[in-house]
Amino acid sequence: MSESGREAHDAVDVIRTKRDGGALSADQIDWVVDAYTRGAVADEQMSALAMAILLNGMEPAEVARWTAAMVASGERMSFAQLSRPTADKHSTGGVGDKITLPLAPLVAACGVAVPQLSGRGLAHTGGTLDKLESIPGWRASLTSAELMTQLEDVGAVICAAGADLAPADKKLYALRDVTATVESIPLIASSIMSKKIAEGTGSLVLDVKVGSGAFMKDLEQAHELAATMVALGTDAGVRTVALLTDMNTPLGRTAGNALEVRESLEVLAGGGPGDVVELTLALAREMLSCAGVDDVDPADRLADGSAMDVWRAMIAAQGGDPDGELPVARESYDVVAEAGGVLTRLDALAVGVAAWRLGAGRARQGDPVQAGAGVELHAKPGDVVGTGQPLMRLHTDEPARFARALAALDGAWTIAPAPQQGDHPRVVAPSVVLDRLG
Amino acid sequence: MSESGREAHDAVDVIRTKRDGGALSADQIDWVVDAYTRGAVADEQMSALAMAILLNGMEPAEVARWTAAMVASGERMSFAQLSRPTADKHSTGGVGDKITLPLAPLVAACGVAVPQLSGRGLAHTGGTLDKLESIPGWRASLTSAELMTQLEDVGAVICAAGADLAPADKKLYALRDVTATVESIPLIASSIMSKKIAEGTGSLVLDVKVGSGAFMKDLEQAHELAATMVALGTDAGVRTVALLTDMNTPLGRTAGNALEVRESLEVLAGGGPGDVVELTLALAREMLSCAGVDDVDPADRLADGSAMDVWRAMIAAQGGDPDGELPVARESYDVVAEAGGVLTRLDALAVGVAAWRLGAGRARQGDPVQAGAGVELHAKPGDVVGTGQPLMRLHTDEPARFARALAALDGAWTIAPAPQQGDHPRVVAPSVVLDRLG
Repeated sequence: MSESGREAHDAVDVIRTKRDGGALSADQIDWVVDAYTRGAVADEQMSALAMAILLNGMEPAEVARWTAAMVASGERMSFAQLSRPTADKHSTGGVGDKITLPLAPLVAACGVAVPQLSGRGLAHTGGTLDKLESIPGWRASLTSAELMTQLEDVGAVICAAGADLAPADKKLYALRDVTATVESIPLIASSIMSKKIAEGTGSLVLDVKVGSGAFMKDLEQAHELAATMVALGTDAGVRTVALLTDMNTPLGRTAGNALEVRESLEVLAGGGPGDVVELTLALAREMLSCAGVDDVDPADRLADGSAMDVWRAMIAAQGGDPDGELPVARESYDVVAEAGGVLTRLDALAVGVAAWRLGAGRARQGDPVQAGAGVELHAKPGDVVGTGQPLMRLHTDEPARFARALAALDGAWTIAPAPQQGDHPRVVAPSVVLDRLG
Repeated sequence: MSESGREAHDAVDVIRTKRDGGALSADQIDWVVDAYTRGAVADEQMSALAMAILLNGMEPAEVARWTAAMVASGERMSFAQLSRPTADKHSTGGVGDKITLPLAPLVAACGVAVPQLSGRGLAHTGGTLDKLESIPGWRASLTSAELMTQLEDVGAVICAAGADLAPADKKLYALRDVTATVESIPLIASSIMSKKIAEGTGSLVLDVKVGSGAFMKDLEQAHELAATMVALGTDAGVRTVALLTDMNTPLGRTAGNALEVRESLEVLAGGGPGDVVELTLALAREMLSCAGVDDVDPADRLADGSAMDVWRAMIAAQGGDPDGELPVARESYDVVAEAGGVLTRLDALAVGVAAWRLGAGRARQGDPVQAGAGVELHAKPGDVVGTGQPLMRLHTDEPARFARALAALDGAWTIAPAPQQGDHPRVVAPSVVLDRLG
C-alpha cells in the first residue's frame, strides 16, 4: 500500500507474493533484482525475500528470469573473436578439490581455450585463487585485455572475476552468506549460472558435489541442482553438462593451498592420486566434447607433458614462477591410527574444517590465509593401516591451531579389522563420478 | 561456522534453526533479541529470521520467551504505588475505532485508573494520538512523573509510549513493516504483549478485530491471536481477557481524526452510534471486572455525565482545551446512492483506505496528517436509503485527493431492493462482539 509510485513495484508487494506461495512475475523479478543492485531495495528486504524463496521455492520460469536479471545487472563478455572454441568448468565446492589447476591447462593443451574466472574460499571449502596465490609472484587480477591475450596465446587463464560481471549476484551472495539463505537450489543455481552466462563461455561442464563435504548432502538434491543449472545454461545458449561426483571423502591426498598445488603438479607430471586423475580426465573429456573436439584423448596430453607446458606458460603469464619453491608450514603434527585394520571411512567435512582451522581458509571475506597450512592424508578409504601408523599430517604456521583442528577430526574416520587371508576385500574404491546430466 | 566466539551465539545458526523448522532455545531467543537491540545482529539477519518465523511458526514456549526478551530489552514501569487498581485496553486496529477516547475516561469514572500508552496510525487504521492531537493544545508526550500524577489525580491518561519501553519491539516493528513480515501471529502477539507487560498494567482487555478492515481477516486466525495473547498476559501476571469484535463494517459513523473526536464526545454526552456505545460498554465492563470492580455499571457513568467530567479533566491536564473548536476540513464531497433500497454491506477496508487517502492517515512514519480529513457515514448496513440520497461525506483540505478516495470506495457497498410491506427485514444489526476469551 505504498503511496509513493516512484518505483514500478513495491518491495513489500514482491516479498508478500513469494511469502504467500505465489510465483513472481517476470516484471517483478526484473524490477527487484535491478532495484536491489541500485540500492532501492534494502538488504533487509532482499534477505526476507531470499528466505521466502528458500522456504517456498521457485518455478523453473522464475529461476530462468531471475538468472537473466542477474546477468543483465552487469557487463557481458564475449570470446567470439577467439580462434578456438571455449569451455569452462564450475565445481559447487568440496574438500581437496584442486581439479581446476590441472584441468585448465590440460584442456587448453587439447586445443580448447579455458577462461576460468574463479573465486576465493569461504568456510571449509578452499578457493582456487587462494591455492594459486601460494605460487611466488602469481597474481589473480587481470584486465579484460590481458585475459583475452592470454587466452589466445596460452589457451588457459585462471583469474579473479571482474566486479562488472553479475554485480547483483555479488551483492546477493554476500547477503545470503550472513542470513542463512545459502542452501536454496534456485538461489544457488541462478548465482552460479548468472556468472557463467555473463562470462560468455560457449560451453560449460558442472561438477556438482554430493556428500558430507559438499553443500548438497544427498543425491536427490544434487540431481535437482544439476538439472536446474543444465536447463538454465541450455536456455541461455551455453552447451551445458553436469557430472555428479562424490564428496563424502576428500579428493586426493591434500587439503590446503600450497599442498594442493603440489598435488596438481604431480597430476600434470603424469602421476598423482587416482581419484584426482580420474575426475580431471572425466571433466576434460566432457569439456572437449561440449566444445566439439572429439579427436584428442586428454590422457595423452598428461603423459606427453604438453599439459604441464601449458601450466608453466599460464603461471608465468600471470607473474608466477613455475619453478619457484612452494611455501611449507612451520609446524606439523601426525595423527596416527589407534588400531590397525582397513580404513573404511574418512569424512570430507571433518578434514575440510580441520584444514580451515589450521589456517588454510578464512572465517570472513578479506581475512588472510596461510599458504602452507592444511591436511596431508597418508591413508584413504580402502588402505590398510597399522597401529600407530600416521593417518594424516596436519600443517600450520601457528601450533595453537592444532587443538581445534584435532577436535574437528574427532570421529572422522572408521578403521575396520583387516581382512584375513581368503576374505573378500571389504572396500572397493568406488568411481568418483556418480551420474551425468545434459 | 563463525570462528569469532565473541558473541554467545551466531546469528546464522539461530536463523538456520528456525529456517529448518526447529524450535529456538531460550538461550538463542534471549541472545538474538538482545543482540538485535544492541546492533550486533543486523537488520538483514533479523528480517530473514522474521520471515522464517512467519513461515515456520513458533511454539507457545518460544513466543513466551520472545515476549519476555523484548520486555527485558527496556525499562519496566510499575503502578503499584497508585491508590487504585489499573486496567488497560488494546485494540489490534480497525476503521473508525475511536473506542479508547470515551473508554478511558469512562473506566476512570468507575474508579479504575487507565494508563493508556498509545501509538500513531499507519496505513488504513487510525492512531489514537493523531485523533487527540486534533484538539487545540493537547500534547501526547508526558514524563513518567506527569503520567503518574495525572493517573492519581484524574484517573485516565492517553499518551505516547516512551522510547524506553520494549525498544527491541520498536526496532523490530519498523523492520517488519518494510519486509512483509507483519502478518505472523507469534510476532504480532509478542509485539503487543511486550509493550503492555513492560507498561506494568495490572489487567488488560484486548479488542481483537476480525474482518476486512482488520489485520485478521477470519475468525479462526483472530481466535488464535487472541488465545496467544491471553496466554502471554496471564503467564506474565497480567489479568488478560480478549473480545473478538467485528471489523467488516466501520465502527460508528466516522473515520478520521477530528471527526472521531466529535463522535466520541457524543458518546460521552450519553448519545452516539449504537455500535460504538455497545463496544465501549462491553470493554468497560471487562476492564472493571479484571480490576476487581463489580459494583458499578458504566452505563450510569455515561448517563450521569461523570465520564464526560473525567474526559474534560484528562484533556485539560495534557494542555488541551476541552471547549476548543475542532478543525473542519476545507472541502467536502457527498457520495450518493445510485439506487434506493437497503444498505446491506459497507466495507471497512475501503472506507479506511478512503479516509487515509483523504489525508487522515500517513504513508510513512513521520508524515503529517490532516486533522479534519476523513469519511462521515450517513448510512450504515440495515439503513434504508433513497436514490440520490447521500451515503457518505468525504472531507479533505486538498480536493485533488477526492479522486483516489473515490477509487478506493469503488464496489465498497451493496444496496438491495427495499423490503415490501409484510416482508421480513433483510438486515438485522448484529452484535459487534463475536466472542470472548480469558
